Amino acid sequence: MKKLVFIRHGQSLYNLENRFTGWTDVDLTDDGYNGAREAGLILKKHGFIFDAAHTSVLKRAIRTLWIILHEMDLVWIPVHKSWRLNERHYGALQGMNKDEITERFGEEQVNEWRRSATIQPLAISPEGHLCDLSDPKYAGIGEGNIPLTESLLDTENRALVYWHKQIVPSLKHNQRVIISAHGNTLRSLIKYLDNIPDDGVASLNIPNSIPLVYELDDDLKPIRHYYLCQDGEVPDGAIPKHMDFNDPENCEWIG
Amino acid sequence: MKKLVFIRHGQSLYNLENRFTGWTDVDLTDDGYNGAREAGLILKKHGFIFDAAHTSVLKRAIRTLWIILHEMDLVWIPVHKSWRLNERHYGALQGMNKDEITERFGEEQVNEWRRSATIQPLAISPEGHLCDLSDPKYAGIGEGNIPLTESLLDTENRALVYWHKQIVPSLKHNQRVIISAHGNTLRSLIKYLDNIPDDGVASLNIPNSIPLVYELDDDLKPIRHYYLCQDGEVPDGAIPKHMDFNDPENCEWIG
Repeated sequence: MKKLVFIRHGQSLYNLENRFTGWTDVDLTDDGYNGAREAGLILKKHGFIFDAAHTSVLKRAIRTLWIILHEMDLVWIPVHKSWRLNERHYGALQGMNKDEITERFGEEQVNEWRRSATIQPLAISPEGHLCDLSDPKYAGIGEGNIPLTESLLDTENRALVYWHKQIVPSLKHNQRVIISAHGNTLRSLIKYLDNIPDDGVASLNIPNSIPLVYELDDDLKPIRHYYLCQDGEVPDGAIPKHMDFNDPENCEWIG
Repeated sequence: MKKLVFIRHGQSLYNLENRFTGWTDVDLTDDGYNGAREAGLILKKHGFIFDAAHTSVLKRAIRTLWIILHEMDLVWIPVHKSWRLNERHYGALQGMNKDEITERFGEEQVNEWRRSATIQPLAISPEGHLCDLSDPKYAGIGEGNIPLTESLLDTENRALVYWHKQIVPSLKHNQRVIISAHGNTLRSLIKYLDNIPDDGVASLNIPNSIPLVYELDDDLKPIRHYYLCQDGEVPDGAIPKHMDFNDPENCEWIG
């Protein structure tokens, strides 16, 4: 059985301010830092070990991973960073307050931007100061390939390139893998793994800083998955039950 | 002109307790954390940017690097970790207090262990609990190759393998490189770069957390080197003068 842990970064400044973040490279808040620490502690408590880690080039995901690895005494494992694991590029919405956007464009339009698989929000202007074209962290992509906005499917497609090229070989070599990433990249990978249709993933909310464990068979088909929740009263050696994706707060444990 | 920055990790617990550390994986002290932060801040202030980073698999070097990269807003760059950049393996001396060892074996013997190029301290026992053979971070080396003690030349030889294989290609591609490592691995690399004889490097003390900048020509021959010291009164845009290795505290600047 192969083991894979997904972790969505801890709370960021823009999460706190209710802004669209996307590729904006905001840092963790203090709560985000503490959430990542707790994730590391619970993974350690339950005996998890990793041989390799993958993350985006955005600091909220990288730092979440670093904090977890420090708590687990695993800072020495290889950490691979790629823009392909970045959050969905939200185009011109990036940095904007979600309520203000809703007021301006209406709830229906905003829901469409957020939840449709194929619709891209308004693109960022290539000349704008918020544009990523001159950011050295994207120099390796090739200018023509840096997105100015993305649909959920665009995000999925570029994340799956990374999945097949980097993560699958690692899992096939029996490496225990952790992926620290973002709401929409994790959604994309889960959609692929669990074969969820395009319209089935929109309501899947992955909470910040709660490890989501996938157990996979030799063909990398999911056997089960569960959230490893913060506890307090979990008995020693308890195994968490298969959890519903949309009920991460209500954890039950098999003693 | 190519640029390379060496940094010796911030103060570790064993530095503080005056113990031989070697491959013992002790963490930074609070002073060590703060020293690394200051190193990051001064590098940022002087406009340094890195494209790639190299470090050991020991947490005092990795965390020093992470703290620096965070201060410089460069957490996204690739970080390569290798046991070949580890501190010299001090054999059975690891974990022992330096004063106690001196009392037991005499100053001459201890100086010989510490400063001779070719003499190895007493080897660690392969069955001992302090042995590295069962540490997963060394699983990739191959059991026969994990040292149980090292002379300074042993350390130099395995560090230079990494230099030629990983760092030279990076510099040849004009990448700006930072190496976060340890007293004896940095000594080894400096000895090679500056063509210092075997007996000339023993007295070279590299201070913790002070960036040591090397400017190299296209053939990777040193043009000059200097410590980038903590300042306070350094004028904006000042360029540090070529510094003597053994006088890092007394920094002068060209305004």
